[in-house]
Amino acid sequence: MLSPNQTKPMMRPYLAVAAEFASGKQTPRQFLEDSLALLEQWEPRIGAFVCTNLPAARAAAERSSERWRAGKPLSPIDGMPVGIKDIIETVDMPTEMGSALFAGWRSEKDAACVRALRDAGTVIIGKTVTTEFAASEPRGTRNPWDTARTPGGSSSGSAASVAVGIASAALGTQVISSTVRPASYCGCVGFKPSVNALNREGSHDIQSQSCTGVLGASLADVWQVAYEIVARVGGDAGTPGLQGPERLPAAKKPKTLAVLETAGWDVAAAAAKAQFNECVGRLKSAGVPIRSRHNDKDVAALENELLNATELSHRCNGWEARWFFRIMRDRDASKLGRITLDRAHKYDNLTLAEYRADIKERARIRAFYAALAKSCDGCITLAAPGAAPEGLASTGNPEFGVPSSLLGVPALSLPLFEDAGMPLGLQLIGFFDADADAVAIASWLMAAQ
Amino acid sequence: MLSPNQTKPMMRPYLAVAAEFASGKQTPRQFLEDSLALLEQWEPRIGAFVCTNLPAARAAAERSSERWRAGKPLSPIDGMPVGIKDIIETVDMPTEMGSALFAGWRSEKDAACVRALRDAGTVIIGKTVTTEFAASEPRGTRNPWDTARTPGGSSSGSAASVAVGIASAALGTQVISSTVRPASYCGCVGFKPSVNALNREGSHDIQSQSCTGVLGASLADVWQVAYEIVARVGGDAGTPGLQGPERLPAAKKPKTLAVLETAGWDVAAAAAKAQFNECVGRLKSAGVPIRSRHNDKDVAALENELLNATELSHRCNGWEARWFFRIMRDRDASKLGRITLDRAHKYDNLTLAEYRADIKERARIRAFYAALAKSCDGCITLAAPGAAPEGLASTGNPEFGVPSSLLGVPALSLPLFEDAGMPLGLQLIGFFDADADAVAIASWLMAAQ
Repeated sequence: MLSPNQTKPMMRPYLAVAAEFASGKQTPRQFLEDSLALLEQWEPRIGAFVCTNLPAARAAAERSSERWRAGKPLSPIDGMPVGIKDIIETVDMPTEMGSALFAGWRSEKDAACVRALRDAGTVIIGKTVTTEFAASEPRGTRNPWDTARTPGGSSSGSAASVAVGIASAALGTQVISSTVRPASYCGCVGFKPSVNALNREGSHDIQSQSCTGVLGASLADVWQVAYEIVARVGGDAGTPGLQGPERLPAAKKPKTLAVLETAGWDVAAAAAKAQFNECVGRLKSAGVPIRSRHNDKDVAALENELLNATELSHRCNGWEARWFFRIMRDRDASKLGRITLDRAHKYDNLTLAEYRADIKERARIRAFYAALAKSCDGCITLAAPGAAPEGLASTGNPEFGVPSSLLGVPALSLPLFEDAGMPLGLQLIGFFDADADAVAIASWLMAAQ
Repeated sequence: MLSPNQTKPMMRPYLAVAAEFASGKQTPRQFLEDSLALLEQWEPRIGAFVCTNLPAARAAAERSSERWRAGKPLSPIDGMPVGIKDIIETVDMPTEMGSALFAGWRSEKDAACVRALRDAGTVIIGKTVTTEFAASEPRGTRNPWDTARTPGGSSSGSAASVAVGIASAALGTQVISSTVRPASYCGCVGFKPSVNALNREGSHDIQSQSCTGVLGASLADVWQVAYEIVARVGGDAGTPGLQGPERLPAAKKPKTLAVLETAGWDVAAAAAKAQFNECVGRLKSAGVPIRSRHNDKDVAALENELLNATELSHRCNGWEARWFFRIMRDRDASKLGRITLDRAHKYDNLTLAEYRADIKERARIRAFYAALAKSCDGCITLAAPGAAPEGLASTGNPEFGVPSSLLGVPALSLPLFEDAGMPLGLQLIGFFDADADAVAIASWLMAAQ
C-alpha cells in the first residue's frame, strides 16, 4: 500500500507482482489506481507528462483485469502502466516533440512500438516530456530525487515517471545519451538496445544512431517491454530486430569485462569514480578479469578511437537532421530553443562528402569495437559523470552515453551507485545484436553488487 | 508555344531549355505559366492532383526567374515545375496518402526530399494522386493517352502530370512496381534508384524495399532531380546515398546485357514481346552480347530465384506495414479500400520468425543477383506487360516491377516501345549502388533505339 504522501521516489516493478494478477490477489486496475495516485502526488512537483489520457488508461486497465481474470493475458506485461516519450506518435494524444511548433499536433496514428504495446495489453498513461525534438533543450521536468536538479534528457519525463512509480516502464529514445543518462540520474534501469533493434517507425528521433529504448523499474520489466514490442512489430524494417528469449535472459557471469573510461572519465565526480573503482575491485574479487587501458593495449587503442565520439556523433546527427531544422527555422525560429538553434547553426554547412566520410569513419570504429567481442563479454563504465547536476537549464553532461550510440550497440544503466545522495548508474555496454548477452550480464551484475 | 487545346500528351523536359533561362530568352515564370495552362486543360480529364498551391508556385517561379537573371541559379533544375506524390510530406499542403483517414492531414513539415527540391529552386505545383497508402487501391487518376485506361500506380498522378507536361518531373515511390509501371503506362522516364539512395524521411512509403523515385520528361531531368536531392539531404540516414556525377552520366555502351523475362513474361502482350525481341535483335546487331535463360545457366538460375519475388515482396511488406493497417482498421475500416483490406488480412498472421526467414531469403537472392555484376553490365526486360489496361479499378499487373524492388537495385523505365497505341517502357535493371552506371547504359539505350 502506498503512503498518502510519498516523498521518496520508489519504483514499482510490474513483473514482480504478476503472480498476484494471475492469482487474482491484485488486478491491473488496482495497480493503475496506485499509479494515478502517484501521478496526482508527484506530477505537480516533477512535470513528467505533457498530456495524459486517463479515461483510456482506466478502460485499458479494466480490459486487462478481465483478461487476467479469464487466465488469458495478452503478454506478461498485460496491464503494465507505461509512458510514451512525446517524440513518439500516439493516435489518441498529440505528439508535440517538446516544441511549440508542434503544439497540439496529431499524427493520427500510433508509432509501431506504441501499437505493439497496446497489443500486448499495456496501459498507456500519457506522453512523457522530451527535450525539444529529443535533442538538448530542456522542457522543465524535475528530478524527483531533488526537484532542484535535472532528470537528464532527452527522455526526461520517462525517467522521472518511472522513478516515482507512476509508470513501471516508459519508452525513451537515444541518439547521444538520452536513455542511459536520465536512467542514471533518476535511478531506474535504462536499456538502449542495438541500433535498429526496436521498430522506430512513428518515432521522430530519426538519425541513423537513434534508437528506441526502454526505461523501467526493473531489468525484467525493461527486457519484457522490449521483447513484447519486437515480437509484434519487429525492429526497423529490413532488420531482424532485437534477438533474445521471451523472458529475461538468465544471469550470466562474464568471463572478462573491459573498463572503458571514455571521454567522460575526465569530468566524472570523485565519488562516482571511487564507487566505480570499488565495483571493479569487487568484480576482480569475484573472479572476473578486468581489462582496461592501463593493462591492455587493445582497450587502450579503443579508448583512443572513442575520444572523438561525441563530435563525430554530432556531425552525423547534424547532417541527418539539417533539413528538418531548416524547415523549423523557416516556420518560426523564435519558437526554437537557443541550444537547438546553436547546434543547427554549427552543422549547417556540412557537405554530403563530409557526411560520407563521417559514416565511413564511424563504420571503421564500429568494426574496431566489434573485434573486442572475441576476447571480452562486455564493457563497463559510468552511466553519467555523477549525480544529476543542479538546475534545469541543462540536462547534464552526455559524454558517457555517447560510445554506445556511436557504436550502435546495446547499453544498460543499472541503478547501483549514488553520488551526493542521488542515484547513479553503472553502465554495461555490449555488442551489436547481442542484446540478450548484455542483459544476462547486467542481470548478474545487479545480483552481484 | 502550346496549342490552346492540346489533346496529345507531350512532355516538357526542363534541362533541354536551361540554356534559354541562362540567356534570358525564357524565364521559369513563363515556363510555369505554360505548366499551369496545361494543368487547366488536362486536370479535369485526368485528375492527377490532390491539391495544388499555385500562389506559392508562382512566387517560387518568380524568385527562380530573378536568380537566373542574376546568373545565380541554385541548381540546374532551379525553376523546374515538379509534382510531389501525396504519400510524401509537404509543409504547405496536406498529405492525404490516398486515404479518407488522412483527409486534410498536415505533417507541418516537408519531407527531406521536398526540402531539398525547394533548396534547389524547383517550383512545387502540388500533390499528385497516389493509390491508397501507395499500395494498390486506385484513386481515380486517368491515363492521358487514353482516359479510359489506368495511368498505373501507385505513383499515378506523378506519371500522368509529367506525361502531359504540367510537371517536368515528379517524385514517386516504389515498393513493388509503383514507379516503373506508371512511367511505362504514361510514357515518361521512370527512375527507381537503389534502395536507400534518396532520403525517405517524411515519405510514408515505409517498407524496407520502399524507395523514393523520380518520374520525368527526360533521363537528364530525372537524373538531375535525384542528384540535387541527394546533394542536399543524402540518402536514408546512415547510408551514402545515390552515387554519381553532378550531371547526367555520359552514355555508355554495355559490354554485356542479360535478358530477364521474370514472372511477368507469361502475361506480357504479344506486341510487347515482339518489340522487346526486336530491341534485343538490334542490340545484338550493335555488338552487345545478350545473355538469357535460353543460352546461359547463370541467368536461368537467376530467373528461377526470382519466380517467387512477388509473394516474397508482399510478405516482407505485409509484416512491415501490418501494425499500420491494424491502426487504420481500428480507426475506421469502412474508410479503407477493399484491395487494401484484403491484402492486410492476408498477411495479418505472419510471425516475427517468418519475417526473419523472409528477409534472410531476400538477402540470399540479392547476393545471388549481385554476383551477376561480374559478367554483365545490367539486365533488360519490359517495364510492364503491355499497354495500360482499360478501366480504373486496377492499376495493372505489377510483375515486371517486382525484381528490382525485391533486389533493392536501380531500375529505369525508358519510353521506347508502344502497344495498342499506348506507350510502353523498356526496363533496365542495374546493380546496387551503381545507379550512375545504370543511367549511363540507359542513356546509350535511349540514343541507340
